[in-house]
Amino acid sequence: MPKPCLTDEELTTALADLDGWTLEEGGKAITAGFKFADFPAAFGFMATCAPTAEKMDHHPEWSNVYNSVDVRLTTHDSGGVTELDIKLARAMNKAAG
Amino acid sequence: MPKPCLTDEELTTALADLDGWTLEEGGKAITAGFKFADFPAAFGFMATCAPTAEKMDHHPEWSNVYNSVDVRLTTHDSGGVTELDIKLARAMNKAAG
Repeated sequence: MPKPCLTDEELTTALADLDGWTLEEGGKAITAGFKFADFPAAFGFMATCAPTAEKMDHHPEWSNVYNSVDVRLTTHDSGGVTELDIKLARAMNKAAG
Repeated sequence: MPKPCLTDEELTTALADLDGWTLEEGGKAITAGFKFADFPAAFGFMATCAPTAEKMDHHPEWSNVYNSVDVRLTTHDSGGVTELDIKLARAMNKAAG
């Protein structure tokens, strides 16, 4: 069974605690942009996050251009943002140091 | 000094030899989409390409969603496609197996 989407209140509370993340227009995903010193640092961040995502069986939509990584998290099965996205976002913030 | 952009003829020749790559509308970049079995395979491909890009000091614009990786290559300093892009595209095709 898909995870339930977070309520507006749950989302507000979760995002208040998630530095750098905002709700996408339409409310179906959360997004963040990460900046690093250079390409190795940016890709190192992705390489740290990748096994976490795989272990959670919850994968980011992300893009990288040189020292920046833009991330979009949504739970496709649920059609919106669930606790899985919040959990992965927290792990990514931790990985970004 | 920035590398010279490839001429139309050079581009046509290079792309004919580069499976999966096409010239972006406007002619300023080449793009390709790679599909893999799953997320670890897709990210493994990126992890194989990353050190090559860093060594060339020429970095892709790329995005990953689960098992797909979309890549855009351009030489910013030159304002278009140079031999650096062709070289990196070749290395990426090789990495994709």
